[in-house]
Amino acid sequence: MKKSELPLSRVYGLLEPGPVVLMTTARGGRANIMALSWHTVMEFEPPLVGCVVSGRNYSYDALETTKECVLNIPTADMAEKVVGCGNTSGRDIDKFQAFGLTAEPASTVSAPLIAECFASLECKVVDTQLVAGYNFFVMEVQKAWVTPSKKTPKTLHHLGRGRFMVAGRVIELASEKK
Amino acid sequence: MKKSELPLSRVYGLLEPGPVVLMTTARGGRANIMALSWHTVMEFEPPLVGCVVSGRNYSYDALETTKECVLNIPTADMAEKVVGCGNTSGRDIDKFQAFGLTAEPASTVSAPLIAECFASLECKVVDTQLVAGYNFFVMEVQKAWVTPSKKTPKTLHHLGRGRFMVAGRVIELASEKK
Repeated sequence: MKKSELPLSRVYGLLEPGPVVLMTTARGGRANIMALSWHTVMEFEPPLVGCVVSGRNYSYDALETTKECVLNIPTADMAEKVVGCGNTSGRDIDKFQAFGLTAEPASTVSAPLIAECFASLECKVVDTQLVAGYNFFVMEVQKAWVTPSKKTPKTLHHLGRGRFMVAGRVIELASEKK
Repeated sequence: MKKSELPLSRVYGLLEPGPVVLMTTARGGRANIMALSWHTVMEFEPPLVGCVVSGRNYSYDALETTKECVLNIPTADMAEKVVGCGNTSGRDIDKFQAFGLTAEPASTVSAPLIAECFASLECKVVDTQLVAGYNFFVMEVQKAWVTPSKKTPKTLHHLGRGRFMVAGRVIELASEKK
């Protein structure tokens, strides 16, 4: 399950299909996890990602204060853990312990990677102009990690209210652009 | 194929899984289409959507000037048309004619719906703070349309360079949240 570094130029391809991600933050030595789907790629390289993290989430304060997080991408076999992270709050429990997830140290941020996820993107917040109005954080990916053995990861895509689409077959068409 | 109105409170579920969308704009009586995947939900209701539309795209000027567009969601059977829209420019061709797509009048914006898409979201730009820095437009969905017969539409999810994931099976888990 050991991860390898992914060139930053290839990060967009991980997020562009719209998978659910598990965002980790850390503050005062305490790490937390939240599930989110409200994210978008904003630039190829250096890779920029925009994310909505509501002020109702316990992770908001940690993200707003430390300006750091890791976006981890889970696969469908982790669906119960993802929903568990979504239905609970770091105010009440340690989600790593509660859902059997393993924290691994990141190299550029204090938030941890989640070992069980096939991809992990270390991020720093670079623009907070839309935080006050929309809870929208612009982040730059500093370092990206993937599990090379997972060639076609079955990502989860949230349809709302606990319904998820699991990534299906891959088709390839002639494209002249990225 | 006739579309019905979808309550605005359910719009997020169409975009949250991350499908490729075909954005239509209209300017000076001329409509255009562009394919994009860099979008995110920003609020449940009224539904807000954030989108990156690069200044290199012909659609940028129309969106920036009219502050209106329609986000149409295609299904996998339309993959060739989607890639066609992505590989060409409205500077050179009429994409509706070139790819056999049908424009239908919207009710709140001048940009047209695409009849062949199973969902169409009429949008108005409501915030341009991040346009100068990131080409990022915040839009409010005014009216939403879906084809009711398409219960589990096989959406397209771009993996980069012409590779697409086609929406797979749907799973349901107990969720306490939206």
